[in-house]
Amino acid sequence: MTEPKDLTATADTAGTADPNDPTGPAGAAVTRKPDLVTLDEVRAAARRVTEVARRTPLLRCDGLHGGHRVFVKAENLQSTGSFKVRGAANALLSLDPRPRSVVTFSAGNHGAAVALVGRALGVTVTVCMPPGAVAAKVGAVRRYGGEIVFTDDLIGSAAALAAERGCPVLHPFDDPAVIAGQGTTALEIFEEVPHPDVILVPVGGGGLISGVAAVTAALSDGTRVIGVEPETAPTVGHALRRGTPEPLPVPPRSAADGLNAPRTGALPLAHVRQHAVELVTVGEEDIRRAWPLMAAETRLLVEPSAAVTVAALRSGRIGLPECATVVLIATGGNTSLGALGDAASSANAVP
Amino acid sequence: MTEPKDLTATADTAGTADPNDPTGPAGAAVTRKPDLVTLDEVRAAARRVTEVARRTPLLRCDGLHGGHRVFVKAENLQSTGSFKVRGAANALLSLDPRPRSVVTFSAGNHGAAVALVGRALGVTVTVCMPPGAVAAKVGAVRRYGGEIVFTDDLIGSAAALAAERGCPVLHPFDDPAVIAGQGTTALEIFEEVPHPDVILVPVGGGGLISGVAAVTAALSDGTRVIGVEPETAPTVGHALRRGTPEPLPVPPRSAADGLNAPRTGALPLAHVRQHAVELVTVGEEDIRRAWPLMAAETRLLVEPSAAVTVAALRSGRIGLPECATVVLIATGGNTSLGALGDAASSANAVP
Repeated sequence: MTEPKDLTATADTAGTADPNDPTGPAGAAVTRKPDLVTLDEVRAAARRVTEVARRTPLLRCDGLHGGHRVFVKAENLQSTGSFKVRGAANALLSLDPRPRSVVTFSAGNHGAAVALVGRALGVTVTVCMPPGAVAAKVGAVRRYGGEIVFTDDLIGSAAALAAERGCPVLHPFDDPAVIAGQGTTALEIFEEVPHPDVILVPVGGGGLISGVAAVTAALSDGTRVIGVEPETAPTVGHALRRGTPEPLPVPPRSAADGLNAPRTGALPLAHVRQHAVELVTVGEEDIRRAWPLMAAETRLLVEPSAAVTVAALRSGRIGLPECATVVLIATGGNTSLGALGDAASSANAVP
Repeated sequence: MTEPKDLTATADTAGTADPNDPTGPAGAAVTRKPDLVTLDEVRAAARRVTEVARRTPLLRCDGLHGGHRVFVKAENLQSTGSFKVRGAANALLSLDPRPRSVVTFSAGNHGAAVALVGRALGVTVTVCMPPGAVAAKVGAVRRYGGEIVFTDDLIGSAAALAAERGCPVLHPFDDPAVIAGQGTTALEIFEEVPHPDVILVPVGGGGLISGVAAVTAALSDGTRVIGVEPETAPTVGHALRRGTPEPLPVPPRSAADGLNAPRTGALPLAHVRQHAVELVTVGEEDIRRAWPLMAAETRLLVEPSAAVTVAALRSGRIGLPECATVVLIATGGNTSLGALGDAASSANAVP
């Protein structure tokens, strides 16, 4: 959870070698990779979270990209309105001994998910959130009994609070239990569509795409996993180019608020590398247009973060075979209807 | 379809007795009921429409009414974005011989459904629609290749056009094949929730509630079927009080545009009576508040017609046992995101 020993090393930095790790001699300071999440761990997560996370529908919606078979994994219909409850539940249920309180940081969806699960388990939850967080997300954290600390320094504040209180930080993406939990989304996808050509995944900190990539590599390695980042929040792409999960030089400020992670972590970076995940970026204007279009076509209330996949599809930057089978993960639905209406009116994307 | 002989009689008017009808002596002018749709007919419809209509998810959403188990049948996720495709497909596929063209009338969802099915079968479709029809619905009819005639006299214009062209009118609700098709919605509900306490159904012309009532009577007769009408469009309630499916004295103009049927028909009236369907009405302001609230809670894009059920629940006028199991049918999702956003902002129903 908080700094498990085999995650302290970044992908490119020397860490303490694990004697059980056959990739390097025991005791030698070698460059080593964090352990990647396995299919078995994702399957164990699926069993663990079954009481909290629901199976969401996979909806056919070819209208999103003419000439192709398009499926939408409707994680906006998940408990708490986002996929985040999968990872939060797996992580909290895996903690042994169970702490009396945890601190986390989030644009809101992970925070609400941890608050929901924490309430069920009797764990006090504090969430560090950005001051500009979407009202629906602030409301959700509070509805589930979470305490909120508004701060621009999400990671620093969470670490300081946890140290002060002697409790763990439940990291929103740099945690194998969280990644395994998010990977359960892909298990469900493959049960219904065994070999899609492409899975398009919105990317913030990289937890979801890590879990999806791990499952895809194990179950359908002809499937391309493509992560979509806002141009203004290319957190994982930046880390990949720099070879280390360093923060973006400029704090991210995308309208896709759920994707504004200031930095990724060693573990997501290792997954994205190891599984050869592709990354594309989309502009703010493209996201703003794709958002109401996705809602009107799917009849799902989605948040802008979910719409980056549609923006990517429409950009033409993703080469697809004829009549491709494409899966989009609609990551969440916690947003402002007024803002969605404004986007629709100004984009004239829907009449 | 168009005036089948055992549907020409209204419930309270003498018709030509059917010699196979044991309720009256052959040849005598007796008051007789139109034949009600049977469970077997609904099951046959389910088999017939399986290529066109999809099984929609039944989503748990207790947040819609605290203290109860609330399920939403998400017909907004149906092909064409509304349940109407079930009845349209069953009716068109049942026509023998298949006509080269049909005329229908509709606020839009039935029209789009007939256009979709007609296109697949090579049947030319003309839809009489009100001049103020929602743009998303006008666009849908055209997208599926339907011709639109805008008119305030929906029923009269459709009849005149059909006579002129020598083709049938595909009635949107006063047709046993349409009612049987709409009833397939209830078959799916009972497969997942066998004995709900209440099913809440938006009521326009009465086709959906007739099918739901027929299936409920056969499969779960402890379940109350409650129809919800706008106060400004109490079409079926008015007919029930008058004992005959006469038009409303004032043309309906609810914001729940899909429910503005000017009159019901003999067949829906007979179903509603025979199956002791309850009816409640909701005001326009209640609908306007319930609409964004339903969207935000369910994360579904629903149209205002679907939200009358939530308005009814919140009105407190529906007595429920403790921890009741309630099913709402979210009938459609073809609407204006701008209007939904405005409703959200002005109602302050969602932050």
